[in-house]
Amino acid sequence: MKLREFAKQLGLSPTTVSRALSGYPEVSEVTRARVAEEAVRLGYRPNVNAVRLKTGRAGAIGVVMGRAGEFHFAEFMAGMAERLVAEDTDILVIPMADPDHNDEMQLYRRLVESQRVDAIIVHSPRPNDERIALLHRLGMPFLVHGRSDIDVPHAWLDIDNEGAVRRATSHLIDLGHTRIAMINGRPGATYALHRDKGYRDALQSRGVELDPQLIASGNFTDELGFRFARSLLEQANPPTAIVAGSMMTALGVYRAVRSLGLQVGREVSVIAHDDVFPYLTADNMAPSLSATRSSMRAAGTRCADLVLQLVSGRSPLEIHELWPVELILRESTAPVQR
Amino acid sequence: MKLREFAKQLGLSPTTVSRALSGYPEVSEVTRARVAEEAVRLGYRPNVNAVRLKTGRAGAIGVVMGRAGEFHFAEFMAGMAERLVAEDTDILVIPMADPDHNDEMQLYRRLVESQRVDAIIVHSPRPNDERIALLHRLGMPFLVHGRSDIDVPHAWLDIDNEGAVRRATSHLIDLGHTRIAMINGRPGATYALHRDKGYRDALQSRGVELDPQLIASGNFTDELGFRFARSLLEQANPPTAIVAGSMMTALGVYRAVRSLGLQVGREVSVIAHDDVFPYLTADNMAPSLSATRSSMRAAGTRCADLVLQLVSGRSPLEIHELWPVELILRESTAPVQR
Repeated sequence: MKLREFAKQLGLSPTTVSRALSGYPEVSEVTRARVAEEAVRLGYRPNVNAVRLKTGRAGAIGVVMGRAGEFHFAEFMAGMAERLVAEDTDILVIPMADPDHNDEMQLYRRLVESQRVDAIIVHSPRPNDERIALLHRLGMPFLVHGRSDIDVPHAWLDIDNEGAVRRATSHLIDLGHTRIAMINGRPGATYALHRDKGYRDALQSRGVELDPQLIASGNFTDELGFRFARSLLEQANPPTAIVAGSMMTALGVYRAVRSLGLQVGREVSVIAHDDVFPYLTADNMAPSLSATRSSMRAAGTRCADLVLQLVSGRSPLEIHELWPVELILRESTAPVQR
Repeated sequence: MKLREFAKQLGLSPTTVSRALSGYPEVSEVTRARVAEEAVRLGYRPNVNAVRLKTGRAGAIGVVMGRAGEFHFAEFMAGMAERLVAEDTDILVIPMADPDHNDEMQLYRRLVESQRVDAIIVHSPRPNDERIALLHRLGMPFLVHGRSDIDVPHAWLDIDNEGAVRRATSHLIDLGHTRIAMINGRPGATYALHRDKGYRDALQSRGVELDPQLIASGNFTDELGFRFARSLLEQANPPTAIVAGSMMTALGVYRAVRSLGLQVGREVSVIAHDDVFPYLTADNMAPSLSATRSSMRAAGTRCADLVLQLVSGRSPLEIHELWPVELILRESTAPVQR
């Protein structure tokens, strides 16, 4: 249906309808509500290009896609999509070849220049992240998914990685474990540092000595989970518990434990971080997996929501969300065997 | 570096440099090669917007993201990204709320109107897919990932789903199995029909009677794999072999088999389709999983390549690629136990 036709059915001028839908203050609240209702009832949707021309908006949120972590990325995007679908707003995915620093800065710069997005979501921030400084300098609205220590005002949403790992490690200590291994993500990102801190703090506050041999880090794959767990468990003085970075890592850890004739939840306790993938659930693993849990999809939905608020003019200084992470105990954790 | 500065360093006029980089025929091949080389050497990159304005290209490929299958989607996108990163071309992801038919058509129509993409990739096509008719009518370059029977010329790339499942089923029959269950994807998509046909053909050609009780279909999740396998194996006359739609489904099937005190590769043989996820590999499952294999990431890369060819003017009639699927035998398949 065209604007003209829709306006006629409402007995209003096209200009009034158009202003009502764009939220201009000249239109009374009553008229605006009526137009909005009728638009839904009659299935009228304003021409996207016309609206964009008028509002000066690109109608898309930008995200840069690196080479790793596709499954987290997909869940996050699915969450964003849930929120953006109602807003005629799309997601512009910018592929990035490799983590070459100059290329990355150049890529963000060109994305801003191209005016194809209204805002950008920055993933896996580092403690001193130049992307944040750059986007701030360029005046592009952006939200950081994760945190950075950089001294530049920015909006962010993060989960409490430090608290989650501290709680997981403390619980294992409560169960009598003192040889607790930690499989962390790639070094460099703030979340990996936060997890490392949570682990170390838990050990220290309980007087358990830290053994650097029990710490491993890398991409969150089944393969690396297997390799790390195998090599950890084959040490002379092996761990009796493992904190695993992700569900995929946990799959590999389970296999490694089984391959050595041991049992998860008996000889080896395991706690993993669960981003709540719909296709792989901690409850369904055998034995069911104790996990720190925070939905990556929910984070995507909320980030999309916050980014829309930024685009509408809300100050980034008001947007700092730290989500608590629950620890859910299942069968994979048990008191240490003496 | 600005165009003017770059041109000065080469001792050429900005116009000549600009024409050389845009591939205008007025510029000699020697000059063009030199400009291209120096651009790389000196790190000059033409302004994206200027190039886009000149070429009339949007610099993005569109894909519509539905609610299911995020992990396949992510792998496919990662593959696309590998090809597109060298082309300054992005991926515009358009979120879709639900599979309401009218909404879907409207969404594609508006995407074309918005001129924000140079081409579209259509996923999970149906036998008579109106999206294909629409895009053809609107004159938008598009590539179908999968196949459709619709009588409208279109470019496509598909894997041989029918052949893959036929081979998997035939192999199980060779091993003496006659009670072979089939866990398929959601009904409606062509690939699910092709897999169904491959399964039925294999049974029929070997004189094995089809039992509709042994067929299940739904989303490719661990959860459904578990439920289907449990209910199949709890039947009075249970299957001795299961053809599973995906790696995630296979995880659930493995759990279901174990939960009944049975063993995969002994009481129950399993073959799954493996899209080659980097974080979950058939080789690493315990027991290792026999699989029909085709890389979703490679398909994404090739689809991006073909779409770029379409945008450059290649006829869709020339682009029909059917990829064979390998069957890789591992420990999860064994002769039927008598």
